[in-house]
Amino acid sequence: MAEPVLKVIPLSGVGEVGRNMTLFEYRDTLVVVDCGLMFPEADMLGVDLVIPDFEYVIEHKDKLKGIIITHGHEDHHGALPYLMRQVSAPVFATPLTRGLIEVKLKEHGLLGKVDIHTISAKDHLNIGDFALEFFHVCHSIPDAIGVALTCAQGLAVHTGEYKFDYTPTDGQLTDVQKLAELGGRGVLVLLSDSTNSERPGYTPSESIVAEAFENIFRRAAGRVIVSTFASNISRVQQVIDTAVMTDRRVAVVGRSMVENVRMATELGYLRAPKEVLLQVEQVDKLPPRKVAIVCTGTQGEPTSALVRMANKEHRQVKIIPGDSVILSATPIPGNEELVNRTLNNLFRLGARVFYHRMAPVHVSGHASVEEQKLMISLVRPKYFIPIQGEYRHLVLHGELGRQVGIPAENVFVVENGQTIEFNSRGAHLGDQVPGGYVFVDGLGIGDVGDVVLRDRHTLAQDGFFVVIVTINEQNGEIIGEPEIISRGFVYMRDAETLMDNAKKVVLEAMNASEHRAGAQNTIRAVLSDFLYQQTKRRPMILPLVIEV
Amino acid sequence: MAEPVLKVIPLSGVGEVGRNMTLFEYRDTLVVVDCGLMFPEADMLGVDLVIPDFEYVIEHKDKLKGIIITHGHEDHHGALPYLMRQVSAPVFATPLTRGLIEVKLKEHGLLGKVDIHTISAKDHLNIGDFALEFFHVCHSIPDAIGVALTCAQGLAVHTGEYKFDYTPTDGQLTDVQKLAELGGRGVLVLLSDSTNSERPGYTPSESIVAEAFENIFRRAAGRVIVSTFASNISRVQQVIDTAVMTDRRVAVVGRSMVENVRMATELGYLRAPKEVLLQVEQVDKLPPRKVAIVCTGTQGEPTSALVRMANKEHRQVKIIPGDSVILSATPIPGNEELVNRTLNNLFRLGARVFYHRMAPVHVSGHASVEEQKLMISLVRPKYFIPIQGEYRHLVLHGELGRQVGIPAENVFVVENGQTIEFNSRGAHLGDQVPGGYVFVDGLGIGDVGDVVLRDRHTLAQDGFFVVIVTINEQNGEIIGEPEIISRGFVYMRDAETLMDNAKKVVLEAMNASEHRAGAQNTIRAVLSDFLYQQTKRRPMILPLVIEV
Repeated sequence: MAEPVLKVIPLSGVGEVGRNMTLFEYRDTLVVVDCGLMFPEADMLGVDLVIPDFEYVIEHKDKLKGIIITHGHEDHHGALPYLMRQVSAPVFATPLTRGLIEVKLKEHGLLGKVDIHTISAKDHLNIGDFALEFFHVCHSIPDAIGVALTCAQGLAVHTGEYKFDYTPTDGQLTDVQKLAELGGRGVLVLLSDSTNSERPGYTPSESIVAEAFENIFRRAAGRVIVSTFASNISRVQQVIDTAVMTDRRVAVVGRSMVENVRMATELGYLRAPKEVLLQVEQVDKLPPRKVAIVCTGTQGEPTSALVRMANKEHRQVKIIPGDSVILSATPIPGNEELVNRTLNNLFRLGARVFYHRMAPVHVSGHASVEEQKLMISLVRPKYFIPIQGEYRHLVLHGELGRQVGIPAENVFVVENGQTIEFNSRGAHLGDQVPGGYVFVDGLGIGDVGDVVLRDRHTLAQDGFFVVIVTINEQNGEIIGEPEIISRGFVYMRDAETLMDNAKKVVLEAMNASEHRAGAQNTIRAVLSDFLYQQTKRRPMILPLVIEV
Repeated sequence: MAEPVLKVIPLSGVGEVGRNMTLFEYRDTLVVVDCGLMFPEADMLGVDLVIPDFEYVIEHKDKLKGIIITHGHEDHHGALPYLMRQVSAPVFATPLTRGLIEVKLKEHGLLGKVDIHTISAKDHLNIGDFALEFFHVCHSIPDAIGVALTCAQGLAVHTGEYKFDYTPTDGQLTDVQKLAELGGRGVLVLLSDSTNSERPGYTPSESIVAEAFENIFRRAAGRVIVSTFASNISRVQQVIDTAVMTDRRVAVVGRSMVENVRMATELGYLRAPKEVLLQVEQVDKLPPRKVAIVCTGTQGEPTSALVRMANKEHRQVKIIPGDSVILSATPIPGNEELVNRTLNNLFRLGARVFYHRMAPVHVSGHASVEEQKLMISLVRPKYFIPIQGEYRHLVLHGELGRQVGIPAENVFVVENGQTIEFNSRGAHLGDQVPGGYVFVDGLGIGDVGDVVLRDRHTLAQDGFFVVIVTINEQNGEIIGEPEIISRGFVYMRDAETLMDNAKKVVLEAMNASEHRAGAQNTIRAVLSDFLYQQTKRRPMILPLVIEV
């Protein structure tokens, strides 16, 4: 009988907000680490979310014995409700992560229907043929962990998302002792966070943000409005701490921010003295220099609180000259235009604005290159699989691995469902399992694909042009004149002549064609030529001949 | 009689690639400085180009006596063909700028129909009621100038786009003597480049790029492929110089790059020894380490040479492991996703890739904050108008002006057609003239506006759903069953049931409505509810009732 192999399958993600998911399979056990979503790229028109391809997991759902979520960011747990509709397995998460997962499950009507277990970073856990241990890591959200999975083939370490911050807001360091201990035991394979493998040096500590906040809060004669991700509990803590220090009260604004703050406070991850928090309705009753506001909107999201303030559309908070606004995040690639527009609008309203280009109001939650080397050096794996990043990040991280002594043939730079198999003789590439994008659009999961997206692209560029000709089914005679329905092509009110001429072109084509009922293709061809020649635009042309 | 005023009107731009254009008007003379285009932002769907609003210029075309183009970038001259179809006036430009303008005019069939005059940076020129002088500035293209305009109200200085580079590729420095001399004469108003007012310190010299190129070229065992803007003649010169130094030959790839190189060589702005240049067809005949290629594609433009190479779609150049690829530019905001995708694809093909995050292979062509202060200090203007940048850049540049001693009330941060008037008593805001975006889409100039764009947005998100019901005009009876034409909404092949049910919903609505011929609104309402409930998508719904 063949020796049982350990299979590691990164279903992989793209960018900082990727659909992160990794499978570990040994004998009769499949363990999933993370189940994240990705926000659509600019050319994924109309798509709401992108989730991993669950086909392999569903096919092997009898083996699925556990799902570990490393931390509470949506790119690590946001696709869980979609998976849990199709499979049944216990989910393991630390308290804050669990809280954030439950918010999502509730939105999907799945709360109480999923078996969630609370774990701590110190726990040991047996899941089928694997023994699991965890270790705390610093990240831009508290309560983040990495995972160590032991099976008979050896020990696999998955870092989650981490940095080495020796002065984090919550005082919880990345567990270097545990990492060194795992390394001493002998690690078969390390899967490590590649997000910042383009960044030389070390990621600065969260404490520099605290300093920047203090400078801004102390100098501001008016209100201070801080935007950050709703999940960035540490950053919210920094706002509260700085407000206490500078004698301001804090209003939490925006649904997701309010919910996360409430939940993190209940679970003990956020320390907010009762007398500091303020209802947004009370803001105007205090002098501006006694007020801080924390809200979302760092990515220029159109429905976020900050963007609505910048657009003068927020019901409760109007930006006034003297306000200081902090964007405590960097723009995710693809969001720069929206962020810049928000910045411009805030400046137009007379706010002083502090953002990543101007002040150290944000630090990354991910390890930079020297920290990535430290991780590899602590864990000293035999094999190395860079995960969590775009392809170039994986390549660059892989090169780092070689620089710190891992043989080139032991580094696997793989994407989207490429299996890596480990047996007693070594490691090699296995099957490619389905690992592409799955688009969620409204209630549809996976139905929007290339065809629909291609049509949306055409429509976005030049609109459509439907022309309907009614003919008598007995004698083929045309009844009335052609009807045109067009949107997104030209401004219809000023295009009467064009439409009249288009009708003439259609009638000529009809009259010239022998089989009027089948004249669709002829109409499309002549109309396409005519409209392009008149406008140099190429709307989607859809002729319909109706026989009555 | 009222004293004649000097009017300065920034028709202004947005971002590094903005539609830059400034008007200077005194008595019977209107002088235009620059006439640039802007590339559409992500939400300007289907728009090809954005040009300034020419209404004011056209209204005052009798006064228009001259158009100065400060340098050969499209955001400073690309809209000229559109203006020259509507007005007649001499255009003044330095030789290289003229060459690039003529390429554009030729594309528009206007070459020979526009009166262009070649000027040098040392020229003096009388245009109507203005006396003009020029001064050389360093920028990311050779032969760039600033403009000084004297009228009876005083001296206005327009910097064009500049940086202070003391070791530029072509050895031509920004003319600090002339700027100091103008400052000594007494300057009424300075209009200065704001692009980099978020960047502290000094912009590094082009010479650091030369060093980076030399390091990469010397170490590369294979080919070196350098992408840059086709207009960045200095960067192309650096590629050629480095190739000569490292014993490589250079192939110029891509239509616009080939044209610009030919023109710049003819005009003497590019020094390329004949034996260095290579036809792209000959590349494969040389050992890889004897070859350099220069091409476009730094912004991830889908039709550029580099992107086609990265996508394995270039006919002549296939990327192979061992190739070193340099992206010698930073992504313009909005292009990051496309650039990242290109980088990932190059890594996938095994290339070593050097880009702004990894190596000093690019420097900005614009002055950073300390240089902006130097400019203001040299020119010592009474009034200051920051130009050329997004609104936040203008605000920050305005603050710099105040820091170096210009009274706050003498700094005008204005946008898009806000007139500033100067008379002997001082300066004040005048009229707001039309200064918004004008969209070019195919042959249409200005016809695509809010209505068409809103429709394109709806279509891009969820497509459209046209339903046609034919009725008998005598008795109102429905003939046949409703026809549906839908694209971009759902994958039609798998949506038969949905379509059948939609038809039933339409028929029910028709049967329930008293006036079938006018049932369009009813159909739209019930279909909208039905489709949203079924899919949570909101396609554009267009019902048509045809009476026969």
